[in-house]
Amino acid sequence: MENKVIYFDNNATTQVLPEVFEAMAPYFCERYGNPSSIHRFGGSVAADIENARCKVAELLGATARDKDGIATEIIFTSCGTESDNAAINSAIATLPERRKIVTSAVEHPGILSCLKNWERKGIEVVKIPVNHLGQLDMECLKREVDENTCLVTIMWANNETGTIFPIKECAAIAHSKGALFHTDAVQAAGKIDIDVVDTDVDFLSISGHKLHAPKGVGVLYVKRQIRFMPTILGGHQERLRRGGTENVASIIALGKACELAKANLAAEQLYLASLRDHLEKRVSAEIPCIRINGDLANRLPNTSSISFEYIEGESILMFLDMHNICASSGSACTTGSLEPSHVLRAMDIPYTAAHGTIRFSLSRCNTMEEIDRVADVLPPIIARLREISPYWENRDK
Amino acid sequence: MENKVIYFDNNATTQVLPEVFEAMAPYFCERYGNPSSIHRFGGSVAADIENARCKVAELLGATARDKDGIATEIIFTSCGTESDNAAINSAIATLPERRKIVTSAVEHPGILSCLKNWERKGIEVVKIPVNHLGQLDMECLKREVDENTCLVTIMWANNETGTIFPIKECAAIAHSKGALFHTDAVQAAGKIDIDVVDTDVDFLSISGHKLHAPKGVGVLYVKRQIRFMPTILGGHQERLRRGGTENVASIIALGKACELAKANLAAEQLYLASLRDHLEKRVSAEIPCIRINGDLANRLPNTSSISFEYIEGESILMFLDMHNICASSGSACTTGSLEPSHVLRAMDIPYTAAHGTIRFSLSRCNTMEEIDRVADVLPPIIARLREISPYWENRDK
Repeated sequence: MENKVIYFDNNATTQVLPEVFEAMAPYFCERYGNPSSIHRFGGSVAADIENARCKVAELLGATARDKDGIATEIIFTSCGTESDNAAINSAIATLPERRKIVTSAVEHPGILSCLKNWERKGIEVVKIPVNHLGQLDMECLKREVDENTCLVTIMWANNETGTIFPIKECAAIAHSKGALFHTDAVQAAGKIDIDVVDTDVDFLSISGHKLHAPKGVGVLYVKRQIRFMPTILGGHQERLRRGGTENVASIIALGKACELAKANLAAEQLYLASLRDHLEKRVSAEIPCIRINGDLANRLPNTSSISFEYIEGESILMFLDMHNICASSGSACTTGSLEPSHVLRAMDIPYTAAHGTIRFSLSRCNTMEEIDRVADVLPPIIARLREISPYWENRDK
Repeated sequence: MENKVIYFDNNATTQVLPEVFEAMAPYFCERYGNPSSIHRFGGSVAADIENARCKVAELLGATARDKDGIATEIIFTSCGTESDNAAINSAIATLPERRKIVTSAVEHPGILSCLKNWERKGIEVVKIPVNHLGQLDMECLKREVDENTCLVTIMWANNETGTIFPIKECAAIAHSKGALFHTDAVQAAGKIDIDVVDTDVDFLSISGHKLHAPKGVGVLYVKRQIRFMPTILGGHQERLRRGGTENVASIIALGKACELAKANLAAEQLYLASLRDHLEKRVSAEIPCIRINGDLANRLPNTSSISFEYIEGESILMFLDMHNICASSGSACTTGSLEPSHVLRAMDIPYTAAHGTIRFSLSRCNTMEEIDRVADVLPPIIARLREISPYWENRDK
């Protein structure tokens, strides 16, 4: 058991499922044609891409089809970050008279870095705060969205705590002032129900590798009526909305992954929540001075953010790693910083707790045995680190 | 033989080589960690990416390494088009006082579409013409590049005719006026020698799927001293120059493909030229009224652009397709248009020849038997199409 990796870092990336790999594998060495080619060898691949596009649309509840039955609202991109950037860039380009973007304080770097760059070019960026549970300040959102706002972008679920945001209400607030609405659903897609029609979002981003498809493929959903200006311009691919030869094998894989996610969604939610709840129950019972972060009543079933107070998260991770247990202290995209993540800071988690925060993120590939193994291993690690922690020693002073 | 596909469309895309597939395959279901993760399961993948980066650098002659031995001039992107866009966008962003870009009339849509978009935003775009052999008008280039020019972008080799441009001279002209120089080397890389140091280019684009790596991965080379502003902003990946989780498997594949390309370059050039020359010799001998397009003394060894006068290229392709022979009438990225390609038009190829132009593009996977098979099949196809062509009937009038 000790030698097998226990992978509890599924919000960073997931294993490609064997069925997904099987679906994509023929497109490398056998069906390698360019879907834009006029010959059947290439052209037949184009039909497979459209089939994958429909599968993605079905996972998102995107029901619109053109006269040929094509789910034209789905644009394939190279990753969630590209999708995020493309939505922001398009909103600014198509509503040039509006010079403000409203977002949350806890977005992914794919949003925040892009917005920071636009801020330098004169776009006003307002970040709506969250409370200590990670819930969005909806009154503040209502106040900040105005006639100068071109885009409101709020993530569907937070990658660090799993907290789910009220996307339908956020979209309605944006639309009430004529602004566009985008949601980064990278962590939500495949884990909870997504319905672009019911929520009435204009743009939505997903990433293949967060739902058991490979890295290097993403999607931007663009509602049919919404004008779109591309970020990457080239050939006629993706109906002129994203240039570059299609990443065929990964698109096929993403279609398959979305099909599987949709088919298993309800059962998987229950399964993942049962694993997570067992982990949290054992940790709560067996380790003192912990806190579980986020909106516990309203979060992704697979994500558990636990603060082990008075010690360093990086040290915990290294000890877990020695047991071949993979977890993280926050987003993989912000690794390297020794500061607590911007998400925990925005939630005003006390310094001594934020520093000792570990994100356990599960997938269908995990088992109850693995949960028990991690729960067995954690208490002595935490106890040992606390023994040598000056913060722990001085905690009551 | 009739049932096996003969693939002579390698400038559109190539087969992933078995060795390349083998190198990438473990990164889907086994070594699927996120290279940004702190645990060994993810972190060990980061080292493999750096190894692939070095392999790419070696193919391009990019010798610079940082203190950790990392080939920091290589940025992994999602495709050649993204690389092209990123180079253009960065040049405009870093030299904002210069408002002109000089390019050629025969670039790929990854360049031309992006420039068209910038033209709408007030950037002057000048396209240098080519002569009937596809050679660039160097005197015109010298005249047009001035102190207002931020970027000169000229492809290394043309995708339709294979004509090779004098990149070293073009870069020198750009630099003489303080402009940056970019080259789209998507069709050249892996087929002929590329040396970024000798040619002194500032930016260079390549695409994985043109050299037997998968679709969905590309590279932008950025010379060490050159300032770069990213097009896609997100996490800290690629040293803050390209956000988004790395497309790990495809990056590993591209490293392997570059290693193989470098090892086999000299032998493969001879092999491909021998195949191509045999095809052209037989076609010239057995079919009247043809012309071979491009700078025959200075072109890619794998590319043959042949005009079969007085008939339609699309009809030829359909007949070839019935024999399971894949070729193209031009770039796959411009498929769908019934007009002759902008490349042939820029070369002032007569209308009746341009319309009947077929690009045969070869790779190491092709054989002399395949060449002979295509050469056997072509004459009756051409004869039959000419029988029903009014242009053929009236050709001497």
